Amino acid sequence: MNIRLVCNLLGRLLMIDSLFMTPALLVALFDGTPDAAALGISMALTGVIGALLALVRPRSDTLRPREGFTVVAVTWVLVSFLGGLPFYISGYIPSMIDCFFETVSGFTTTGSTILTNVEALPRGLLLWRSFTHWVGGMGVLVLSLALLPRMGGRSVFLMRAESPGPSPGKLVPRIGQTAKILYALYLGLSVIMFFMLMLCGMNWFDAFIHTVGTAGTGGFSNYNLSVGHFGNPMYEMVIGIFLLLFGVNFSMYFYLLRGDWKTVWKNSETRLYFSIVFFSILLIALNILPQYGSFREAVRYSFFQVATIITTAGFGTADFNLWPMLSKIILFILMLTGCCAGSTGGGLKLIRVAMLFKGIKREIRRTVHPRGVDVIRMDGKAVDEDIFSSVALYFFGYMAVIFIATLIVALDNFDFESTFTAVVACFNNIGPGFGMVGPMGNFSEFSGLSKIVLSVCMLLGRLELYPMLLLMSRRTWKRY
Amino acid sequence: MNIRLVCNLLGRLLMIDSLFMTPALLVALFDGTPDAAALGISMALTGVIGALLALVRPRSDTLRPREGFTVVAVTWVLVSFLGGLPFYISGYIPSMIDCFFETVSGFTTTGSTILTNVEALPRGLLLWRSFTHWVGGMGVLVLSLALLPRMGGRSVFLMRAESPGPSPGKLVPRIGQTAKILYALYLGLSVIMFFMLMLCGMNWFDAFIHTVGTAGTGGFSNYNLSVGHFGNPMYEMVIGIFLLLFGVNFSMYFYLLRGDWKTVWKNSETRLYFSIVFFSILLIALNILPQYGSFREAVRYSFFQVATIITTAGFGTADFNLWPMLSKIILFILMLTGCCAGSTGGGLKLIRVAMLFKGIKREIRRTVHPRGVDVIRMDGKAVDEDIFSSVALYFFGYMAVIFIATLIVALDNFDFESTFTAVVACFNNIGPGFGMVGPMGNFSEFSGLSKIVLSVCMLLGRLELYPMLLLMSRRTWKRY
Repeated sequence: MNIRLVCNLLGRLLMIDSLFMTPALLVALFDGTPDAAALGISMALTGVIGALLALVRPRSDTLRPREGFTVVAVTWVLVSFLGGLPFYISGYIPSMIDCFFETVSGFTTTGSTILTNVEALPRGLLLWRSFTHWVGGMGVLVLSLALLPRMGGRSVFLMRAESPGPSPGKLVPRIGQTAKILYALYLGLSVIMFFMLMLCGMNWFDAFIHTVGTAGTGGFSNYNLSVGHFGNPMYEMVIGIFLLLFGVNFSMYFYLLRGDWKTVWKNSETRLYFSIVFFSILLIALNILPQYGSFREAVRYSFFQVATIITTAGFGTADFNLWPMLSKIILFILMLTGCCAGSTGGGLKLIRVAMLFKGIKREIRRTVHPRGVDVIRMDGKAVDEDIFSSVALYFFGYMAVIFIATLIVALDNFDFESTFTAVVACFNNIGPGFGMVGPMGNFSEFSGLSKIVLSVCMLLGRLELYPMLLLMSRRTWKRY
Repeated sequence: MNIRLVCNLLGRLLMIDSLFMTPALLVALFDGTPDAAALGISMALTGVIGALLALVRPRSDTLRPREGFTVVAVTWVLVSFLGGLPFYISGYIPSMIDCFFETVSGFTTTGSTILTNVEALPRGLLLWRSFTHWVGGMGVLVLSLALLPRMGGRSVFLMRAESPGPSPGKLVPRIGQTAKILYALYLGLSVIMFFMLMLCGMNWFDAFIHTVGTAGTGGFSNYNLSVGHFGNPMYEMVIGIFLLLFGVNFSMYFYLLRGDWKTVWKNSETRLYFSIVFFSILLIALNILPQYGSFREAVRYSFFQVATIITTAGFGTADFNLWPMLSKIILFILMLTGCCAGSTGGGLKLIRVAMLFKGIKREIRRTVHPRGVDVIRMDGKAVDEDIFSSVALYFFGYMAVIFIATLIVALDNFDFESTFTAVVACFNNIGPGFGMVGPMGNFSEFSGLSKIVLSVCMLLGRLELYPMLLLMSRRTWKRY
């Protein structure tokens, strides 16, 4: 392990990270609220630690996968820890573990909260809390790659470790360029959404909070009732539609901008995504119809809930805890599958699900023709057997983490539904689960141990297991 | 598809199957209870249908995987249907779907019941109900292979389709011989257990019922309180120990009889199995200690419950629904993992779990050394990459079935815990789940649709997906 290089990179990343607090600090200064000091101190502290670490000069500049994965994992942990300081210093969240949980939940775009009354927070802290969604959505490091001139040799490992999906690719040959394009698209869509919400009549602060929460598919709101606070179908429509758009693989927008409609139209993951969305909305609307009276209202709530769950954002307009079991199980399955790879959403990613179902079909064919050569194809291209077996294994690792984490959270002795879905909701970066952690509930009652486990789950989910597992593996720290 | 060969084989299998009702019929005749007629009619009907089907002369004798898998799947469905007739004809279970559910539950060694009062049934029916466990445990077809002189050409496909585990092997070169050895071991262990229960003071009928339920790891009892009825720690000890023994891969007993202790001692699946059992008993005992007062009593209940759940039998001595959540989640995870391949137990099988964890470790190594050659080893032997990828995919198929089935069962609108664990309990051939379907509950309140879905789940679980999936696949029925 090239520790010096890791420290140096970490330092540079933290220095950039400290700048992310600027908008929140400005709002706090404008409002003259006491959180300004807390934000200022945290910002300075992050910057100083970063500067000190950046002083470490690496002897060699070669970034191997080992260092890449370590930098990604450590950055996320550190950034979440330092990002939680404003809540702690200002005294709004008195427990250090809670601050960490809340900030991990922000950066990983989970949106689970330990706050019982969000509205008690000053605007500066609320803005910082939500802004972490925007930074974490496309990736803390991808953003840094876009901003930094050159991050050592093979920085593709950094991006690969942070980007979701089975085989994240580069859009253009140079990695820094790819990062810039992705962030430009991300920023562009966010700006459009922000102005649309303003046009519909939302004030700029609420529009900003809900735009960054949507873009990162995070789900923190500045209201206790989340989007339901407004009771405005127009807002719900805009947020719902943009959620679905942010759930699409961003390369699709790149292709669209280049005029390559055909690739987008034929992309099987995008098709699967919108088909699942359509049928889920329909089934749930029919299922909850008796509760809402009119089909129109049923579709309104069903549409918003499906959009917010499949994209793993977790905003709320209705308490789906009170919906019939069929609707709950549909939402539960959407929680697990998530949306498209290369989007800001979490979960397993639909391309993996599609690949695995093709794999099952092949297994059935193979029982009949054990010796036939049979390749799995996605969008016409043969899937490499190594990637395919990694995807199948990823699914096992994914479920194994859920079960192991549930085992520890079960120590708190809450009911089965709350325990199990709390883990699923955190690991898939959704936010709310069922039961106690439903849309009207929160995570405040869990023990410190459970909150740490759930925080680790969010990181494991956001970084797709391996960077975090590598960090926890003894082998990484052995031999140079 | 060689339909004629399939029919012929089916006919011969059904003729043998009809003989399995003999013990139950004898008991009913001895007791002079009205179920004797019902059993006699069912037996005759099964025999006649079998004889008629056996009249179909196949043009060719070649048994390909396609026919093998079809025969296995259809046999299990037919045998379950015909085996349910005694309950229907005698009027003790008035619904045809319920009869099917109960008999599938028997043959697949699940042990889930729709009966609210088992003790109301006459002894003949109770014996038949439990005896299906013994027949299904080692395999309806394996038994037939042991009894029939020669089942066409490559009958290894029949055995492979019915035997659990990633790569069921032959103990001796000839398949009929392997089947005979397996059944001899199975019978031997069963007889020993039967006499041990009698020695402890159980009457012959109870001893028989609980022996066949243990040997097949099924879990039907003739008492509403299951093994808890006796309140006898000696009985629980004998049943618990034999459950654990029947959860071991039967090849181990073959090696033991040949004096090959070393292979058994070093077998990693067996070691993993007993380690998991030990730690689960310990953890649960500590967790339930406050409920039972003494460590001795806590271990007594914990031991029996772990034995009965990891082997997927599902006998009960305590209502684990009332245990703390940690114990419930441990039991839930044991439900999923199951015991060893090549045993009579269900679930995922520990060898698969072990393989997949090794795969995850390799993935971590691969992120560090992307180009290294890295083979997964089990018991010193390299695992073929094809088998490995099949195992990983099996896990996906396994979870996919659980989620899809849960979706349909959710239509009944019971609570999350009951809905989800009902599917898990049926699919893994356990018997009881949590909530409404807990050890003191039953499956009577589910709708007809749910009962059919749960029955299919039991078959999918017992036959490890592919024979049933193949049967449901359009492709199987196309082109000759």
